[in-house]
Amino acid sequence: MTQNTSAVKPLTLGIVGVGLIGASIGLAHKKAKTFDKVLGVGRSEANLNEAIKLGAIDQVVSLEQCAKESDVIVVCVPVAQTFSILHAIEPHLKQNALITDAGSTKTDVIMAAKTALGDKVAQFIPAHPIAGGAQHGASAAKADLYQGKEVIICPLQENAPAAVEAINKFWLGMGANTHRMSALQHDAVFAAISHLPHVLSFALMLQVANAEDANVKLGHAGAGFRDFTRIAASSPEMWRDISLANKTALLKEMDQYLNLTKQLRDMIAKEDGDALLKAFTRASAERQKWEGR
Amino acid sequence: MTQNTSAVKPLTLGIVGVGLIGASIGLAHKKAKTFDKVLGVGRSEANLNEAIKLGAIDQVVSLEQCAKESDVIVVCVPVAQTFSILHAIEPHLKQNALITDAGSTKTDVIMAAKTALGDKVAQFIPAHPIAGGAQHGASAAKADLYQGKEVIICPLQENAPAAVEAINKFWLGMGANTHRMSALQHDAVFAAISHLPHVLSFALMLQVANAEDANVKLGHAGAGFRDFTRIAASSPEMWRDISLANKTALLKEMDQYLNLTKQLRDMIAKEDGDALLKAFTRASAERQKWEGR
Repeated sequence: MTQNTSAVKPLTLGIVGVGLIGASIGLAHKKAKTFDKVLGVGRSEANLNEAIKLGAIDQVVSLEQCAKESDVIVVCVPVAQTFSILHAIEPHLKQNALITDAGSTKTDVIMAAKTALGDKVAQFIPAHPIAGGAQHGASAAKADLYQGKEVIICPLQENAPAAVEAINKFWLGMGANTHRMSALQHDAVFAAISHLPHVLSFALMLQVANAEDANVKLGHAGAGFRDFTRIAASSPEMWRDISLANKTALLKEMDQYLNLTKQLRDMIAKEDGDALLKAFTRASAERQKWEGR
Repeated sequence: MTQNTSAVKPLTLGIVGVGLIGASIGLAHKKAKTFDKVLGVGRSEANLNEAIKLGAIDQVVSLEQCAKESDVIVVCVPVAQTFSILHAIEPHLKQNALITDAGSTKTDVIMAAKTALGDKVAQFIPAHPIAGGAQHGASAAKADLYQGKEVIICPLQENAPAAVEAINKFWLGMGANTHRMSALQHDAVFAAISHLPHVLSFALMLQVANAEDANVKLGHAGAGFRDFTRIAASSPEMWRDISLANKTALLKEMDQYLNLTKQLRDMIAKEDGDALLKAFTRASAERQKWEGR
């Protein structure tokens, strides 16, 4: 993909990391026929084989070959691996190649990209597709994973407008809606609405699983427990990385949450039914309003 | 329903409280044709009209009339109202009538029942159907709400075995599976798997709604947030009552949870990736194992 996107059809897409996110990108663009060829790079032979079998990628290549041949590269690895991936591809990048990513945090990814890519960071347009869920691996991939989903793009000052627009089209081409946001705002927002609930869900699952009567408890757990803990089935490695990558914003949210929950605890201890009702009423009304948006 | 259940077909069912839970019981038993007549008592005219319209009840009556005519009475009101309901019906109960309930907590309901009913507590067989969800009101009622769902029965020492068996059949007749448990064990189990997650879900919804940039946050919240906070749309009144009714067990779970979450917070603050990975891995594995049961 040259930065003059309208004139030349892009030739080769390189996907680094062919799990659920990467393989679904491959399937979506194969279906949309945006690229002539889709290359895949990965650590897991099982995922690579699955991605080939599903038709998400045409060929398995090395990181170096991927960098040499691709016009667009999308990095779909746990955020902690961003630096080493970008560092490895930097010497081999085509001059007009563009890179985007699918990382759930952005300030740390941008720090890693600036260090790894130097001046070539202008070719890197950070993004975060809000899609996925608890399942992982190429076997869960689907061509419509991004259909109607949101993708946050956090352009850098170094990015040329045409480069940002080309990557914008790359995500729109999978049926996604795109939004722009600063990396800092992105990380604060997702700490609150995604990273915090994941940690809280892991914690509840741990508490119930570690109870002496865990079997009785798990045997009676119903729909509320199922929904609340669905995200506790997520990839532990990915969520360790996200928690550390977005440490500052996440700790701020966690401290606020611990404080708020302690307040509810004290209302229950003091049997302050009025205060509890007020708090629950506001939460319930806001949740219903949100659902109805 | 006489205690000799096999011989005589029960005549009249009285449902006190015709919200989602009560109206669904009406629909299920109307469909199963277990009773000749279903009476409904309620505070909300809208719910009563809806219950009549849906065919969940045949007739709206006063509490006194319900007690005088019913062979089985099922109390489906917020647990804090149990005492006043049972106190009001006690003088008018038929000699062989049986009472059950649908309260989410049991030790407090039993305390209320013993005080309100005196010796007639032998006619009260406490139960807790694990069904419902975030929706409420008669308009959400359905005949198959209890189909395949679990109902916990917490028999009292005062209950005759035939009475317990009759109420057991009452719940089985709606397609539910029944289990027996002591009230104390019931309350400890549900504090952990239901009451705690509800309070935690309310707390997250409050935190996000109270943020200065709440609109941006809620605008970007995705599937994980949706699942985690689904139960925050639940009835505030019901959950205030449950929180207070099951205070002892709930506070124990909340303190444990605050402590565990503080530990995860400290792992993130110290960037202890190994400890985090270990915790998340156990949580994720347990959640997947539970889903696969």
